[in-house]
Amino acid sequence: MIAGKMLHRLVKRVSVRVPSSTANLGPGFDAFSMALEEPHLELVVERVEGGEGVVVDVYGPYRHRVPTDPHRNAAAKVLLKLAEKSGGTQGLRVVIDASIPVAKGLGSSGAEAAGAVVAGERILEMVLNEEERIRIAASAEPGSHADNVIASLLGGFNIIDNSPAGLTYLNIKPPDYIGLVILVPVVEKKSTDEARKILTSPPTLTEYSQALSRSSLISAALALGRMDLLLKLIPFDPFIEKVRANAGLYGPGYRWEHLLEEKKKLLSEYGVALCISGSGPSRLLIYDVRRGVEKIERAVEYLSERIERLAGGLEKVIYTRPTTQGAKIIEEH
Amino acid sequence: MIAGKMLHRLVKRVSVRVPSSTANLGPGFDAFSMALEEPHLELVVERVEGGEGVVVDVYGPYRHRVPTDPHRNAAAKVLLKLAEKSGGTQGLRVVIDASIPVAKGLGSSGAEAAGAVVAGERILEMVLNEEERIRIAASAEPGSHADNVIASLLGGFNIIDNSPAGLTYLNIKPPDYIGLVILVPVVEKKSTDEARKILTSPPTLTEYSQALSRSSLISAALALGRMDLLLKLIPFDPFIEKVRANAGLYGPGYRWEHLLEEKKKLLSEYGVALCISGSGPSRLLIYDVRRGVEKIERAVEYLSERIERLAGGLEKVIYTRPTTQGAKIIEEH
Repeated sequence: MIAGKMLHRLVKRVSVRVPSSTANLGPGFDAFSMALEEPHLELVVERVEGGEGVVVDVYGPYRHRVPTDPHRNAAAKVLLKLAEKSGGTQGLRVVIDASIPVAKGLGSSGAEAAGAVVAGERILEMVLNEEERIRIAASAEPGSHADNVIASLLGGFNIIDNSPAGLTYLNIKPPDYIGLVILVPVVEKKSTDEARKILTSPPTLTEYSQALSRSSLISAALALGRMDLLLKLIPFDPFIEKVRANAGLYGPGYRWEHLLEEKKKLLSEYGVALCISGSGPSRLLIYDVRRGVEKIERAVEYLSERIERLAGGLEKVIYTRPTTQGAKIIEEH
Repeated sequence: MIAGKMLHRLVKRVSVRVPSSTANLGPGFDAFSMALEEPHLELVVERVEGGEGVVVDVYGPYRHRVPTDPHRNAAAKVLLKLAEKSGGTQGLRVVIDASIPVAKGLGSSGAEAAGAVVAGERILEMVLNEEERIRIAASAEPGSHADNVIASLLGGFNIIDNSPAGLTYLNIKPPDYIGLVILVPVVEKKSTDEARKILTSPPTLTEYSQALSRSSLISAALALGRMDLLLKLIPFDPFIEKVRANAGLYGPGYRWEHLLEEKKKLLSEYGVALCISGSGPSRLLIYDVRRGVEKIERAVEYLSERIERLAGGLEKVIYTRPTTQGAKIIEEH
């Protein structure tokens, strides 16, 4: 009888790798998100024997921008919620390698929250379903928005409807031939909440109809691999980007007319789509990798010069791709 | 040399068959349309020797609702435009079998316009491309809206973005297992223009975001055959149906609270989605034919009783399906 018994060994330490994400993709305000191969972050959760609550340690290039107060840190907020749900008093430590630019529209806090839910579930021996993971991770985000969190948890392209009646989402594998470049400006947004408060005047009926027709075309085009439609429609958000650009969120003195000029030139001359990543200020370029590198290189050169000259300076350029790999455990012991 | 010459024989008479269509499908305001197997109309265009301009004859069950003035009749307006474009002075006669309920939200004028462009192109020996056909047919519609026209021309499910920068559309084959029932109330709308004038107050930012996320989910679900998502989301238009219901467009004394109650009951008890067809007042039921007929029959019974009692009476019930067949020539000589 004793031979049949399994020795139950507690996992003490779990490491996860989590992709960053880009939200909106032009017209898809609060509805679209896509996981990015790079940048990504790694996050470790470990038991603290005799401890209680959650201790946060942060290192990596963006360590100075990630709060270590467990009531303000996204990963810690998730771990505190999981600990409460599991009914235990286990002390935990989370170590975050902050490698995703913070406050740049690349879902850094969503990635932390997604990583924490995957690592926390394992270390606290919980069994959550996909929707529970999403809800818990989203609860650490401003306004409980689930868009970045879903991309970092599931990978791929995601369409999300988060209404009082319940969360509905669809995960789609993006076409293999999408190439992406992120241009990260020096300017930082204060917070996603601030970017949201800019949106005080309502859309017109025309903007409403254009936003839903273009986002519907984009989502069907992603499902069907229609790159031509993606490139044609992603640049032309009819409302949100315009309001935010004119509020100065994308750079001091930089306005919608500048962005629109860039969108039109990049599409017509280089076949490249430009939109703002999430609530900004990062710019996202989308192109067809089958067309070779020359045009995208020229597009990056043009846009880099524009950001340097008109939008307050360029911090870095990241060449990346969509990824279908969401947050995953890479080591445990 | 004479033997090699083809005798050019003019076509004198062309008959076309054209499907009706349903627009919006819930959240997809001005963006979605789907061609219906039934009802359909037939339309004949013939040369009038020695005549000029366009003469309109109408017969069939809805003959009293179709104008015969060529400057108000959709088919005649298209034929006048084609004649002008072709530079000829050929007199034409169009005979319309008015079998699609008029002013009920089933795209009857769009079907006439689509039929006229297909028949007119043939009889006037023109060569138009798909986009030209759409533009000419849409020019006969109120506000040049292309949604019903595209469905009647191309068949299938269609996503349309009609912006100053140009027309973009995507034609998708709907899943084979969609069943549809149309309940046509006695109440008539004055016109699509009137239904549009009701929409005076702008949507909120939440309604904007919900409309675009739900319509994006619906279009991807149609592309991927995800019937579960279609049924869950089509009923829940966040803005347009509510405003129009409360303006009395769907029946005297009938309000959004009535419609919402029906939507919820039909979905939860029968697995059937309810939305308004186009700008109304017809109700469209969407169901999965693989689930058998019992539930849809009970759903129709329930909704028929509600329309009789709350919305001013029921004119007819039409059991139908989507069709991938657009307007086509069925006879010529």
